[in-house]
Amino acid sequence: MMKILSTKISLKTKLLAFLTFLTFCSPTLAQNQATWIWYPGDFEVWLSNKMQNRRTERGSFFPPFWKLDSHYNLVDFHKDFDLLIAEEVLLAVEGQFNVKIDGKAITGFPKKITVPAGKHKVSLKVFCQDRVPAIFVQGKKVVSDASWLVTFEDKEWIDETGKASDQSGTNWLKAGFWNFNSALTPPSKFKLETKIQQAVKTERKAQSLLLDFGKETFGFIKLQGLKGKGKLKIYYGESKEEALATETCETLDEIEVNEAKKKDITMELSKAFRFVNVQFEAGVSLDEVSMLYEFLPVADRGGFRCSDEQINKIYDVSNYTFHLNTREFFIDGIKRDRWIWSGDAYQSYLMNYYLLFDSPSVTRTLLALRGKDPVTSHINTIMDYTFYWFIGINDYYQYTGDKTFIQQFYPRMQSLMDYCLSRRNNNGMMEGLTGDWVFIDWAEGLSKKGEVSFEQLLLARSLETMATCANIVNDTKNEVKYKQLATELKAKLFTNYWNNEKHALVHSRVDGKQTENVTRYANMFAIFFNYLDEAQKQDVKKHVLLNDKIQKITTPYMRFYELEALCALGEQNYVLKEMKDYWGGMLNLGATSFWEEYNPNKKGDEHYAMYGRPFGKSLCHAWGASPIYLLGKYFLGVKPTSAAYKTYLVEPQLGGLEWIEGKVPTPDGDVKVYCSSKQIKVTGAAGVGTLRFKSKIKPNSKDGEIKALTNDLYELTLEKGNTYEVFYEL
Amino acid sequence: MMKILSTKISLKTKLLAFLTFLTFCSPTLAQNQATWIWYPGDFEVWLSNKMQNRRTERGSFFPPFWKLDSHYNLVDFHKDFDLLIAEEVLLAVEGQFNVKIDGKAITGFPKKITVPAGKHKVSLKVFCQDRVPAIFVQGKKVVSDASWLVTFEDKEWIDETGKASDQSGTNWLKAGFWNFNSALTPPSKFKLETKIQQAVKTERKAQSLLLDFGKETFGFIKLQGLKGKGKLKIYYGESKEEALATETCETLDEIEVNEAKKKDITMELSKAFRFVNVQFEAGVSLDEVSMLYEFLPVADRGGFRCSDEQINKIYDVSNYTFHLNTREFFIDGIKRDRWIWSGDAYQSYLMNYYLLFDSPSVTRTLLALRGKDPVTSHINTIMDYTFYWFIGINDYYQYTGDKTFIQQFYPRMQSLMDYCLSRRNNNGMMEGLTGDWVFIDWAEGLSKKGEVSFEQLLLARSLETMATCANIVNDTKNEVKYKQLATELKAKLFTNYWNNEKHALVHSRVDGKQTENVTRYANMFAIFFNYLDEAQKQDVKKHVLLNDKIQKITTPYMRFYELEALCALGEQNYVLKEMKDYWGGMLNLGATSFWEEYNPNKKGDEHYAMYGRPFGKSLCHAWGASPIYLLGKYFLGVKPTSAAYKTYLVEPQLGGLEWIEGKVPTPDGDVKVYCSSKQIKVTGAAGVGTLRFKSKIKPNSKDGEIKALTNDLYELTLEKGNTYEVFYEL
Repeated sequence: MMKILSTKISLKTKLLAFLTFLTFCSPTLAQNQATWIWYPGDFEVWLSNKMQNRRTERGSFFPPFWKLDSHYNLVDFHKDFDLLIAEEVLLAVEGQFNVKIDGKAITGFPKKITVPAGKHKVSLKVFCQDRVPAIFVQGKKVVSDASWLVTFEDKEWIDETGKASDQSGTNWLKAGFWNFNSALTPPSKFKLETKIQQAVKTERKAQSLLLDFGKETFGFIKLQGLKGKGKLKIYYGESKEEALATETCETLDEIEVNEAKKKDITMELSKAFRFVNVQFEAGVSLDEVSMLYEFLPVADRGGFRCSDEQINKIYDVSNYTFHLNTREFFIDGIKRDRWIWSGDAYQSYLMNYYLLFDSPSVTRTLLALRGKDPVTSHINTIMDYTFYWFIGINDYYQYTGDKTFIQQFYPRMQSLMDYCLSRRNNNGMMEGLTGDWVFIDWAEGLSKKGEVSFEQLLLARSLETMATCANIVNDTKNEVKYKQLATELKAKLFTNYWNNEKHALVHSRVDGKQTENVTRYANMFAIFFNYLDEAQKQDVKKHVLLNDKIQKITTPYMRFYELEALCALGEQNYVLKEMKDYWGGMLNLGATSFWEEYNPNKKGDEHYAMYGRPFGKSLCHAWGASPIYLLGKYFLGVKPTSAAYKTYLVEPQLGGLEWIEGKVPTPDGDVKVYCSSKQIKVTGAAGVGTLRFKSKIKPNSKDGEIKALTNDLYELTLEKGNTYEVFYEL
Repeated sequence: MMKILSTKISLKTKLLAFLTFLTFCSPTLAQNQATWIWYPGDFEVWLSNKMQNRRTERGSFFPPFWKLDSHYNLVDFHKDFDLLIAEEVLLAVEGQFNVKIDGKAITGFPKKITVPAGKHKVSLKVFCQDRVPAIFVQGKKVVSDASWLVTFEDKEWIDETGKASDQSGTNWLKAGFWNFNSALTPPSKFKLETKIQQAVKTERKAQSLLLDFGKETFGFIKLQGLKGKGKLKIYYGESKEEALATETCETLDEIEVNEAKKKDITMELSKAFRFVNVQFEAGVSLDEVSMLYEFLPVADRGGFRCSDEQINKIYDVSNYTFHLNTREFFIDGIKRDRWIWSGDAYQSYLMNYYLLFDSPSVTRTLLALRGKDPVTSHINTIMDYTFYWFIGINDYYQYTGDKTFIQQFYPRMQSLMDYCLSRRNNNGMMEGLTGDWVFIDWAEGLSKKGEVSFEQLLLARSLETMATCANIVNDTKNEVKYKQLATELKAKLFTNYWNNEKHALVHSRVDGKQTENVTRYANMFAIFFNYLDEAQKQDVKKHVLLNDKIQKITTPYMRFYELEALCALGEQNYVLKEMKDYWGGMLNLGATSFWEEYNPNKKGDEHYAMYGRPFGKSLCHAWGASPIYLLGKYFLGVKPTSAAYKTYLVEPQLGGLEWIEGKVPTPDGDVKVYCSSKQIKVTGAAGVGTLRFKSKIKPNSKDGEIKALTNDLYELTLEKGNTYEVFYEL
């Protein structure tokens, strides 16, 4: 057994290396498959500009209030080839370009070149202001892919005799790419997919139609058989109330109809709605209204089912909520803002690891958020959102093992961290300066003054992330620096904020003095960041998390972390009950997707209001979908213990359920888990997995050797593709 | 007389303040004249991308090799108005936009709004990726102009109740503008003007036409009465030899003709040429070839005439050379590169002050060169070119007094200086690092190794510029810092490079040791930077400038400074002879514009070659036009002695000529000068002018009081608009 095992591991290690490589380049490409390439990060910036400038509010353009960056407009691409025979190579380019073989330019803008046999450098240089300079090179061996090198400044000059400079300060990165694998689908033509959907109910009047699409949805309204002359208005509603509130609904469209013959017209901008109220003047007639549902085609790899139908419903609605908000990027909500908010996106990354495992969606979002240097404000102007960006990279590396991403973007991590460090006060602490939004959460009366403990905690974790990444890129000097800064700051967290009487971290210091206020934020993060000792954890659990006197959280956003902290403390039973109350509470109110904020104390239309507007609240917000993450990580209990699931843990927790089952995706294969109080069945993915469980009796399995850690705690090692059935008693 | 004078000055002071204001905003705008506005510097960056990516070399696209930046794609504009009556306001916008009155958005993309009476804030926010976000607002009082404020990040968030943030870290700049004064001519439509020109001579053969346009020119070739089917090629030549050298001429066009009927076709790209060789296949016929001369419409304000017809010719050809190279920006040369090179442009700024006094051409060029942060290389990758950028701002302020430019762009000056300072070696000196091009001049065997004295000298002057600008923006802390750095570096110049045996600054230090090499560069700049004491000046004059053993300069680029240094030493007679030899030498070879390089020792076609290519040399290079500057500043002798000509000096120098006369433009009026050996006649401009001259006899004038400084040196104070005739004897 041992011998076989070791052989297997050795083979697996090799295979793992190869598959890990493919995963980094995900979506994986067949060898010699050409794909459109660009300067890494640039398509993401460009596409995010397009998306984030699509927001309207009651027909007015509503763009972001932070700096938007642009792609490099002049980019150099090259790769060295060694060909046995000459080959004909087709070129497609976005922009004005030249192509050179061994530095010699070919006249004009050729669509086809011949690369001779032997060793040759093929280079293209592309200028494009409105779109991202991008190339598609299709030969047999000469194909454009992630192995090409790119730069935005080649710094290659010649002297008066024509001799090229012999020293170059040029930084070459690996080309960026996604899934544009045909010459005919350049990056600038990117669109989400659509499919037609019909309303489930239509109320028709002489000059109006009220449609109900049955659930929250997103897409382009299509007016069929439109004819006549006059105005037509479309009022969108996530609720029926909103669609009918023509003066206060958040989004609307207005068109001038002037059609002698019947015509189908599709709206230019996609919108979020369940209800649509179409009103038109007397001269206008209309056969039908349908919609084109707009979506990112990405399949679920994870899944969850259990013995409780309400939890299954919560999982399904979370899944749907998450899909609706997983688009060009991970967005906050589909009605507004459809912007990329780093704190919101951070939660989507985590959910993604348990549902889609779609790394391009994570990196697209991280890159769009980061944009370009110089850094002139925090990400989204929010201090905490800058830190989530760093921590998101930490998680991304842990789940995917993608070192290339870190190698390529470490300089952008550094310059953003430099910005943060330059804004510390004299105590070395973060404090909101002019122009800094200290967000934390939507919570009434929450103080943002002085040195907020929560922000220092996130900075500490960000510094730890920087140390990890410095190590990956062999920047030893800065690895030491970041580690030291993190250690110092963590020490300050406790000297400055821990209050023995309150058994908790206090909320803030103002003018160098602890405030009396205790909030949940820093305390709950400190638990799953593992910054607390066992006694402190129990203190926090009792005096903060399970203490009703501490201000309650009303956003799914922060409930995410609150429940995660409780899960990390083994309180799955409590969490399950909370989940049923809170998410179940929204379902009971008829939610078909989860909301931006939910306060069970509110009544009727109060639920729709926010930001001082009667329908300001988003009823489909990504951060509402956290059960995907909680159920995957803390009930199925699957999580990596080293980067890319090279080692991982499976610790199923029923939390009071009779049985649970599901799948958790990894870079190479899914981990499948079934668990009841008597039986556990797990199928391993690549990497060394460890099933850990408690049992009252001595457990047994035919499929592997069970090790006893204590008298009721057991472990079993998992290998890829193998299924392990364990009989035990909870 | 005294009383009248003082009254006049007081009035003049007020008038000056107003006129200076207008000059800053030059081209001046009538009150309530609407003009297109944008984020300052952005149109310049955008237009320079367009222009610099128009270069082709033998039909291949030939873009710059440094980073090109982009405009901010999302820009906020606003201004507060106080209206007696409501007014209707027309809007024209480049990009997707919203418009708000007092923060409340108006639905859609209105072309017309009504601003009510009273105090109101009008704001527009514009997104545009391909062009520069720009607005044109035309009401009665509500008009877009340079007084609007703009930003690329407004950082205005709201809390969950809809309350706007009460602290903003937003930097607002004054809007950028030029001369787009009609809604119908948005910035993106900018084009140079054109006018038709005919060849002066045409040699026609069955399948070719060889045209001579009589002199160097620039524009679009127009093929008239083109018919038939087949290929047509156009070979451009600055010389006849080049146009005929179809295999090696630098630029060409190739088109496929397929016209059943006669048609006129104009080439898409403008080119530089005197000769054009049109060759076509048998199936093609052609009536005629003409051209559209392409130019920036900007009038001469300065002028120069003298008793020597060759010098007049040199002045005229300099003038024409300068006009040809004054386009969207000050470019290097019209055949290639048509890029903006900071060292080349620096000379154009100086010439401009003596010919066009067109400040927008200076600021357009400075802004295009600087681009955006982050700084990733020296300007044009060249260390010295970064320094010329700073020094160019020093001069710009001296000649125009434009504080607004400095206030708006001081942060970009700082970040570029930070880049420079961060690249000093352990001795605090600049030394070429990987990726730095140390250019200095095109000169055979010129060493760029180690710490080159010339570069330290330019850095010292750049630091002095920073100190001046820090003072203007009231950045006292950094003013002190920059002054100190400049003082320290200037001291090092002499301790490290001055060699008493060589009576000069040596060229460089390598490994901390002086080299033996003496070149002209640092020495001649040290003269007109006034870094040398009188004895050192005389040493340098004798042992370097007038020493034939020191490597000669063969580019008009460095001859500019060499002759300037000699002029500054009062060697106008010598300079005049050199000018006649050198520029006259080019004229004798048939030059109709001045060249990139001229070596009198070369013969025939050798003159055309450079960069290892037979026609690589540009025969129309801006830096060839320096006589404009030398004759204006050192013969007419007019120069500001404080910013904006508030005080200025007129010191005419005949340099051996019988008489000279001319005009020098200032921010407010021209200084007119006539000088012979017996008579000087000067008309003053605004500001306090001082005519200074030597005379063997006691001079006399009816127009003002002549003060004797010494027994042969005299002064007379000049006032605006007054003409002063002085009789004296040289």
